[in-house]
Amino acid sequence: MKKILEDYKKGKISLNEVLEQIKMLPYKDLDFAKIDTHRHLRKGFSETILCKGKTTEQIVKIFQNLLREKHNIIATKANKDIYLAVKKKIPDAIYHKQANMITLVQEKIPPNKGKILVITAGTSDIPIAEEAVVTAEIMGNSVEKCYDVGVAGIHRLFDIKDKIFDANVIIVIAGMEGALASIVGGLTSKPVIAVPTSVGYGASFNGIAPLLTMLNSCAEGVVVVNIDNGFGAGYFAGLINRK
Amino acid sequence: MKKILEDYKKGKISLNEVLEQIKMLPYKDLDFAKIDTHRHLRKGFSETILCKGKTTEQIVKIFQNLLREKHNIIATKANKDIYLAVKKKIPDAIYHKQANMITLVQEKIPPNKGKILVITAGTSDIPIAEEAVVTAEIMGNSVEKCYDVGVAGIHRLFDIKDKIFDANVIIVIAGMEGALASIVGGLTSKPVIAVPTSVGYGASFNGIAPLLTMLNSCAEGVVVVNIDNGFGAGYFAGLINRK
Amino acid sequence: MKKILEDYKKGKISLNEVLEQIKMLPYKDLDFAKIDTHRHLRKGFSETILCKGKTTEQIVKIFQNLLREKHNIIATKANKDIYLAVKKKIPDAIYHKQANMITLVQEKIPPNKGKILVITAGTSDIPIAEEAVVTAEIMGNSVEKCYDVGVAGIHRLFDIKDKIFDANVIIVIAGMEGALASIVGGLTSKPVIAVPTSVGYGASFNGIAPLLTMLNSCAEGVVVVNIDNGFGAGYFAGLINRK
Amino acid sequence: MKKILEDYKKGKISLNEVLEQIKMLPYKDLDFAKIDTHRHLRKGFSETILCKGKTTEQIVKIFQNLLREKHNIIATKANKDIYLAVKKKIPDAIYHKQANMITLVQEKIPPNKGKILVITAGTSDIPIAEEAVVTAEIMGNSVEKCYDVGVAGIHRLFDIKDKIFDANVIIVIAGMEGALASIVGGLTSKPVIAVPTSVGYGASFNGIAPLLTMLNSCAEGVVVVNIDNGFGAGYFAGLINRK
Amino acid sequence: MKKILEDYKKGKISLNEVLEQIKMLPYKDLDFAKIDTHRHLRKGFSETILCKGKTTEQIVKIFQNLLREKHNIIATKANKDIYLAVKKKIPDAIYHKQANMITLVQEKIPPNKGKILVITAGTSDIPIAEEAVVTAEIMGNSVEKCYDVGVAGIHRLFDIKDKIFDANVIIVIAGMEGALASIVGGLTSKPVIAVPTSVGYGASFNGIAPLLTMLNSCAEGVVVVNIDNGFGAGYFAGLINRK
Amino acid sequence: MKKILEDYKKGKISLNEVLEQIKMLPYKDLDFAKIDTHRHLRKGFSETILCKGKTTEQIVKIFQNLLREKHNIIATKANKDIYLAVKKKIPDAIYHKQANMITLVQEKIPPNKGKILVITAGTSDIPIAEEAVVTAEIMGNSVEKCYDVGVAGIHRLFDIKDKIFDANVIIVIAGMEGALASIVGGLTSKPVIAVPTSVGYGASFNGIAPLLTMLNSCAEGVVVVNIDNGFGAGYFAGLINRK
Amino acid sequence: MKKILEDYKKGKISLNEVLEQIKMLPYKDLDFAKIDTHRHLRKGFSETILCKGKTTEQIVKIFQNLLREKHNIIATKANKDIYLAVKKKIPDAIYHKQANMITLVQEKIPPNKGKILVITAGTSDIPIAEEAVVTAEIMGNSVEKCYDVGVAGIHRLFDIKDKIFDANVIIVIAGMEGALASIVGGLTSKPVIAVPTSVGYGASFNGIAPLLTMLNSCAEGVVVVNIDNGFGAGYFAGLINRK
Amino acid sequence: MKKILEDYKKGKISLNEVLEQIKMLPYKDLDFAKIDTHRHLRKGFSETILCKGKTTEQIVKIFQNLLREKHNIIATKANKDIYLAVKKKIPDAIYHKQANMITLVQEKIPPNKGKILVITAGTSDIPIAEEAVVTAEIMGNSVEKCYDVGVAGIHRLFDIKDKIFDANVIIVIAGMEGALASIVGGLTSKPVIAVPTSVGYGASFNGIAPLLTMLNSCAEGVVVVNIDNGFGAGYFAGLINRK
Repeated sequence: MKKILEDYKKGKISLNEVLEQIKMLPYKDLDFAKIDTHRHLRKGFSETILCKGKTTEQIVKIFQNLLREKHNIIATKANKDIYLAVKKKIPDAIYHKQANMITLVQEKIPPNKGKILVITAGTSDIPIAEEAVVTAEIMGNSVEKCYDVGVAGIHRLFDIKDKIFDANVIIVIAGMEGALASIVGGLTSKPVIAVPTSVGYGASFNGIAPLLTMLNSCAEGVVVVNIDNGFGAGYFAGLINRK
Repeated sequence: MKKILEDYKKGKISLNEVLEQIKMLPYKDLDFAKIDTHRHLRKGFSETILCKGKTTEQIVKIFQNLLREKHNIIATKANKDIYLAVKKKIPDAIYHKQANMITLVQEKIPPNKGKILVITAGTSDIPIAEEAVVTAEIMGNSVEKCYDVGVAGIHRLFDIKDKIFDANVIIVIAGMEGALASIVGGLTSKPVIAVPTSVGYGASFNGIAPLLTMLNSCAEGVVVVNIDNGFGAGYFAGLINRK
Repeated sequence: MKKILEDYKKGKISLNEVLEQIKMLPYKDLDFAKIDTHRHLRKGFSETILCKGKTTEQIVKIFQNLLREKHNIIATKANKDIYLAVKKKIPDAIYHKQANMITLVQEKIPPNKGKILVITAGTSDIPIAEEAVVTAEIMGNSVEKCYDVGVAGIHRLFDIKDKIFDANVIIVIAGMEGALASIVGGLTSKPVIAVPTSVGYGASFNGIAPLLTMLNSCAEGVVVVNIDNGFGAGYFAGLINRK
Repeated sequence: MKKILEDYKKGKISLNEVLEQIKMLPYKDLDFAKIDTHRHLRKGFSETILCKGKTTEQIVKIFQNLLREKHNIIATKANKDIYLAVKKKIPDAIYHKQANMITLVQEKIPPNKGKILVITAGTSDIPIAEEAVVTAEIMGNSVEKCYDVGVAGIHRLFDIKDKIFDANVIIVIAGMEGALASIVGGLTSKPVIAVPTSVGYGASFNGIAPLLTMLNSCAEGVVVVNIDNGFGAGYFAGLINRK
Repeated sequence: MKKILEDYKKGKISLNEVLEQIKMLPYKDLDFAKIDTHRHLRKGFSETILCKGKTTEQIVKIFQNLLREKHNIIATKANKDIYLAVKKKIPDAIYHKQANMITLVQEKIPPNKGKILVITAGTSDIPIAEEAVVTAEIMGNSVEKCYDVGVAGIHRLFDIKDKIFDANVIIVIAGMEGALASIVGGLTSKPVIAVPTSVGYGASFNGIAPLLTMLNSCAEGVVVVNIDNGFGAGYFAGLINRK
Repeated sequence: MKKILEDYKKGKISLNEVLEQIKMLPYKDLDFAKIDTHRHLRKGFSETILCKGKTTEQIVKIFQNLLREKHNIIATKANKDIYLAVKKKIPDAIYHKQANMITLVQEKIPPNKGKILVITAGTSDIPIAEEAVVTAEIMGNSVEKCYDVGVAGIHRLFDIKDKIFDANVIIVIAGMEGALASIVGGLTSKPVIAVPTSVGYGASFNGIAPLLTMLNSCAEGVVVVNIDNGFGAGYFAGLINRK
Repeated sequence: MKKILEDYKKGKISLNEVLEQIKMLPYKDLDFAKIDTHRHLRKGFSETILCKGKTTEQIVKIFQNLLREKHNIIATKANKDIYLAVKKKIPDAIYHKQANMITLVQEKIPPNKGKILVITAGTSDIPIAEEAVVTAEIMGNSVEKCYDVGVAGIHRLFDIKDKIFDANVIIVIAGMEGALASIVGGLTSKPVIAVPTSVGYGASFNGIAPLLTMLNSCAEGVVVVNIDNGFGAGYFAGLINRK
Repeated sequence: MKKILEDYKKGKISLNEVLEQIKMLPYKDLDFAKIDTHRHLRKGFSETILCKGKTTEQIVKIFQNLLREKHNIIATKANKDIYLAVKKKIPDAIYHKQANMITLVQEKIPPNKGKILVITAGTSDIPIAEEAVVTAEIMGNSVEKCYDVGVAGIHRLFDIKDKIFDANVIIVIAGMEGALASIVGGLTSKPVIAVPTSVGYGASFNGIAPLLTMLNSCAEGVVVVNIDNGFGAGYFAGLINRK
C-alpha cells in the first residue's frame, strides 16, 4: 500500500487508480482474507478438504487450486478411490489408509516441543484417532499414541500413567459410552479434548451416547468436538500445544 | 379338584356344579394370582405404591387396603404432606426424608448374608441412593453406602476398593455423564446395577445422558434401570442377593 | 514379592532392582489387572471381542493374543467371513451361525445348577437370543429356550408357565413394543433381564420403543441392557446364576 | 333449494336473487358446513372446547355461543376456576372433577346398546380415563370402568375377563410402559383404542414411552390416540360403538 | 368337557385321566387360546406373518404350519424372493406385488355390507395403501380406493366427496406432513384410521412428521397406527366395519 | 477518501496518517455497519428487543439507547411488569396485551398497498398471531385477521375464501398438528409464511409437531419460521409485501 | 348458471336437472379446482413431480398426463435412469445432472426483472442449490450463483458483497452448522430463504443441526424450508420475486 | 520407599511390615490421589461446587470442608439464599450476582500474561459469560468482555476486531442459533471455546440448537462445552492460557 501511495504522490498512478486499489483493500490487502492467509502460513497448511459429500472431480480440482499456495494440504474422510484420482494429478500426495486421509507436504513445519497424547478406548476408534494424529503431526507436533485403553479394564489406563503425565495436551477418543474422557480428565491437569465416535450399536445412537457423556463430563478441563471429528481434535490440540 | 370329582362321582354335587368349578380353574385355583400372593409373602412386602401422579387421598386408601395383608409396605416418591396424611391413619408408618419414602414394617424379614454396596457419583444423587437403600434394607439386606465417589477424582473410588471387593451386589447411582457405572463395572466381577439420575443440567437432558452411558457400558456385568429408579435397583439387588 | 524382599535382604538383588519391582507393583502384581485376570479365570473366559467396527485383520490378531491365556474366548457380532479368517489360524474355533458368534473353548467350566430361561417375543429376535444362550452356556450354565412367545397371543406364554417357575434367571428378548418383559416380570419373582431388539419398523425406531418400554416396566425385578445386547444379558445372567 | 327454484319459476323471486342464493350454496346450504351441523346433531354435541391455551374469558364466550345451537357441549382440560366462571353465566353446566371437564346437557341422546369398557393400568391414569368416560356417556353410550388393572400383577387383568368379553369396544389407558394395550389386544377380538398417558417418570418422557409401545403393539386391532387424549378415545369409541 | 365328566361318572375313564384333561383345560379347551382360535375363525384368517426380520426359511416353515388350520393366511412386508420360496411349497399362494404381501385363501369369508374407503395423499403411499386393501378384502370387506388425493390441491379431495360420504370406515394414508388425515377427519363423521408413511425426505424423519401430525389431529374421530402399518389399518377397519 | 488522498498529495497529511485511515476503512467508512444503519432507516424501525431472558433493567436501558435513533421500536415476549418499567421512562410506549409486545412509534411509515392476511387455526394461537399483526402494522402494512379457522371444520376456511384471494401475503399460525398451513398453501398462489405454535399437549411436544408438519408441507409456496415466532413472520411478510 | 336457470324457467329443462346442476356447482364450476388451474397457468408450470418414492413407471405416466396441459413440467430428486425412461417417451425432456432434475419447457415464461441470488456454504451443497436454480429459472427468474462461500473464511462472503446488495431475493443453502443464513440475514435487508442440507456428519444429524440453526436465526428476515428442499426455496423465491 | 527398604535390610522393620507398606503403595503413597492434590495446588483452587441439586445444608458443609485446604473455592449455579447461608459461616465469601457464583479467595494466584476474551451473542447470555469470567479471573487470568456482539448485526463483531486479535484464548457464548462461534472461529487463529446457552425459545430446545451448531462448526479451532457451562469454558481457557 505504501508503495502505491508513494507512486501516487510521485504521479506515477492517478487518483482514480488509487481509489480503485483502496476499494479492493478490505477484501484483498488488509482484510480478514489476508489474516486468513497469514494464519495458514503460521499453522502449516492452507486449507482442509472434507471429502464427504464432494465428487472426486471436485476434490481433485480443489487440491490443484490449493497446490499453488505452496502450503501443506490435508483431505479428510477420503477413500482409496479419491486418493488414486488425486495421485494421478499430484504424484506426491500420500494416502493414510487408517486415517482415511490424503496429505501433501510442501513445506516442513518446525517441530513443537510439547507432546500430544492420543488415547482411544477401543480398537474400532483407531480410524478417528489416526485422523487426529496425522493432522497434529503435519502441524509439527510430536504425537504419542495409546490405543485400546478401555474403561472395561481400567488397569490398562494405569499402565500408561507416565505418558499421561508427560503429555502437554491429551486427545481422548471413545465410542460406546465414552466414559474414558471423564476418567482421563479426572487424572490429569492437562487440557483434554474429547472426540465421541460413532462406534457402538443400539443405544449408542451413532455417537450420541458418547457425545452426551463427554459434554456432561464432571471432570474439569474437558472440551468436546463433533462425533468422529478426529481432524478437529488434532487441529485444536496443535493450536494449544504450539503456544 | 380330585375331591370335587370324587364328590361328583358320588353324586354329592351335580354336573353343572363341576363344570362351573372347572370354568373357574384357570383364574382361581391354578392361576398366577395365587402364585403372585406367594411371591409377595416370600419377598417380604405386598406391594409398592408409586406416589407420583396419585392424590393423597388415593395413597392413604391404598395404604389402608394393603395394611390388612400384614406384609411390609413401601411408598416411593412421597413428600412430607403425603406422609402426614398417611400417619394420621397409620401411626406406625415411618418417613424417610432423604429417600422420599414411607415404610411400614409389619413383619421382620430374616437378614441376608450378602452385602449390597450403594455408590453415588455425587451428593445430589443421594435421594435416589437412599431410595435403593431403604428398599433393600426392608427386604432384609445388609447395605453399605459410599456417597460422592465421583469420576472427577478417581482416587476417591480407590479409597473404597475394599468395600467393592466385599460386596455381593453393587448399585451405582450417577447423574451428569454417569461414567462411574462403567468404571466400577470394569473393577469388579460382581453384578452392577446402574441407576441414571436426572441430576445435572444442559446436555444431561434430565438423565438421558447417564442413561445412554450406562446402557452402552463397555464393562461386562452392568444392567440398567429407569432414570431415578432407586427403588427398582434396590429391589433387584435384593432379589439377586437373596439367592 | 516376599521372595524379592528376601533376596534383597540376602543381597542377591540391589536396592534399585527392588525399587524397580515395586514401581511395577500397582500395575503388575497387586493391582486391578491381577484381580482382572482372576476374575476372568473364575468366570471361564478371558475377554470378549465385539467384532463390529473392527477389521478382520484386527480380530484375528486379538484372537491369537487371547489364545495364550488358555481361557475360553468369545467374539460377538461376527459374520461368516470373519469366522473363516479366524478358523484359518485357529482351527478349533466354532461358528454359531444364528448367534453371529465365534467361540473357542480351551477349558471346561464346571456346570451351574440353576437354570437360565431365554424367552423371545418373536422369531426375528432369535439371533439376539442365541447370543445370550451361547454366552451363558460357555460360562457353564444350563439354558432353556422358548422362542416366539409373543404378547399378541398371551396363551403361548402360559404354555411355558412351568419353565418360568423352574428358571433361576429369565432373559426376555423382544423388539417392536417389548411388552413381554413387563408381563414376564409380573408373573415371576425371579430376576428378569430384558433385552430390547432392533426388530420392528416405523415407530419402533430401531429398538428405542422396546428399550423405553422395558426401562419403564411397572413390574418389579426387571433390569435392562443395551439394544441387541444378547451377550450382555447372557453374561449378567451367568453372573447372578452362579452365586 | 327446490322451493327457491319453484318460486323463481312462478316469478316470486328474480333471477338475480336465485343466483345470489346459488353463490351462497357451497358454503351455506349444500356444503360441508351443513353436513358438519348434521354430524353434530347425530352425535349429540356441537363442539368440544379444549380449554388448555385459552383464557377463561374466551372459554366462557365460546360456551355462550355454542349454547344457542341447543346441542350438548363439553369442555376438556378445564380446572375448577374455569368452571366457576362458566357456571356464573350458564348455571346448568356440570363440573367433572376427576375428568377436568365441564359439560352441559341440552338434549338427551338415545342410549347405545353396545358396551364400552375403559381400563386403566394404574390409579394415576384415572383423570384421562374419566375424560373418556364422560365423553362416551354424553354420546349416549353405556360405559364400564376397570381401573388399576396393571401389568405388574397380570391376574388383576384376568379377574375382569368377563367384562372384556362383554364389551363392544375397549379403551386401554396406560402410562409408564403402556404394555397393557398389547396384552388386552392379544386377549380380545374387539377393537382396542389405546391412550398413552404422561404418567410416569424418568424414561417415560411424559408419555413418549407408552406412545411408542402402543404404536408398535404386535397385537392386531389396536389403534392409538394422542398422549393424554382421553376425550379422543371416548369420542372414537362412541363413533364405532354406535354403528 | 361335559362328555368327559359323564364318561368318568360311568366309569369309562379314570379319575387320573379326568385330572389330566382338566390340567390341560386352561391352555387347550377353555382358555384364551381357544378364544384366540375362535377369534381367528370369525375374522377369516389364522395368523399374520410379518416377514421383516425373519429368514426366508423361517417364513416358509411358519406358512406350512399355519396351512393345517385351514384359515386364510397373510404375510406382510414380503419381497418377491420370499414369495417364490413360499410358492414352491404352497403353489396356491398369491403375491400382491404393490402391497408386498403373500396371501393364501383357504376359506371364503362372507362379504361385509359396509364400504371401506382407502385414500392416499400421494402416489408413493400406494404400497402401504395396498397392504391395507389386501388385508381388508381378505377379511370379506368391500374396499374402494382413491389414491393421490393430496392436500396440495385440495380440489382433488372434493372430487371424491361422494365416496367419503358413502364409506363406513375411512383409512387415510399419508407421508410427508400427513395433513390429509385431519382434513378428511374434519369433513366426515365416519371413523378415520390414519396411517403415517415413511414417504418424504429431510424433516419428515422417516414418518415421524406425519405420525405427530396425525396424533395431534384437531379433528375428532381420528385414530393412528404405526408408521407404514397398512396391515394394522386394514385389519382395524375390518374389525369395526364388521359389527 | 478522495479528499484524504488529495491532502496527502498536497503534503497536508503524512503517509502514515493515510495508511492509518486506510486501515480503518473496512470497518468505519465502507463497511456493512453503515449499510446496516441504512437498512434500518429504510424498514422503519431500528432494532427489536426480545425480552425473554433479559432483566427488566436491561430492557429499559436498551429501550433508552434505541430511543435516540428516532426510529420505531418494538419489544417482543414482554409481560405487563416489563411494560410498566419501560413506561416509567418512556411514557409514549404502548403495550399490546394480546401480543405481549411494547411498541414506540417515533416515525410514521408510509402505508403499503398490498394486504397481509393473518389466519390462526385456533383461539389459543392468537397471542402469536397478534405478535405478527403488530409487527407488520408498525412496518406500514395493512393487515387482515381471521382467527380460529381450524382444520377440524374446513368450511370455516371456505368462509374466508375471498380474503385469501385478496391477500398479497398470508401468515398461517397453528399449533397442535399444524395442517392448516398446507391447506392454505394448496388453495392459494400467494406466498404463505407458516408459524408453528407451542399450543397443544401430548405429542405436539411444544410445537415440534406443527413445525415438522409445516416443514414437510407438500403444498408449494410455504416457508416456515421458528415455533411461536410471530414477530419473524410479521417482519418477513412486511419485507415481501413492500416490494 | 344464468342460462340454466333461464332454460329452466322457459321449461327447457326440468327442476330435477337444475338441482343436479346446482349440486355439482361447488366442485365443478365455482370451486377451487378451477382456481387451481388458473394458478398454474399464471406461474408457468402445471405440477411438480417428486420422484423419490415413486416407481419409474409411475413417473413416466404422470409426466405423460401433465404433458397435455401444455405447461412446463419439473421433476425433482430424479436420477439418470428415471430420466432415460422419461426421455424415451418425451424426447424433449432435459436432464439437469447436478440438480437431479428433469424439466420440460412447453411455454416460455416472460422474464422477471428482479435477481435471485443463490449462495451455498460448501461445495457439497451444490446439488440442492442447483435444484433451486433450475426451479427459479424455469419460472422466468434471472438467477446468480455464488457457491462455497463458507463461514470458516468469512472474507469469501465479503467478496460477493455487491451481488448480495444487487439481489432481490437471496437463497442461502448450507449443511453442517448452517450459520451462513444468519450472517447473510444480518448483512442484508432482502428476504432470505434458508435451506438446510443433509451435508455433514456426526452431530449434524442429516440436516437437523442446520435446520435448527436456521429456525433460530437471530437475524430478521430469514425463513426456512425443509432439509434438502432446494425446489421449495427456488419456488418461493420465484413467487416473491414476481410481484 | 528407599528408606523403608534400607530399614528392612538393617532389620529395623520386619518383612511383614514392608509387605504391608507395599500393599498400600498404589493407593496411598504413589497413587493418583496425591497427584490430584498437587494438581489442585498448581491450579489455584481445590474443588468446585455445583450447587444445582444439592441442599443448602450440604453446600455449606462442603464449603467448610474445603476451607481447611487453604485454596480458593468456587461454587456455581448458586442463588442468593445459598450465598446468605454460606456467608453466615464463612463471612469472607463473595457473591457474584450476575454469575450466580460464590467465591472465596484464600490465596492469590500469580497473574497470567495472555488475555482471555469472552464474547456473548446477546444480553441474555451474560450470566453464563460472567460464570466464565469469574472462573478465569480467580485462576489468575486477565479477562476482557464483549457482550451482545450478535450475528444479526455483524458489524458489531467487526468493531471488536482488535480485541479478537489481541486475545490469547476466546470464549464465545451464544444461545438461539449459536452461529457466532463459527464466525469468530473463521476470523481468528486463536483457540475458540464455544458455550451454547439455553437462551432462546421454540426450536432452540433449551440449548440443543446452539449446541449442534457449535459442534458442527465448519471453522477449525472451535471446541464445545456443555450447555450453560460457563464455568467449564472459563476453566479450560485458564488451563490453556497458562502454558
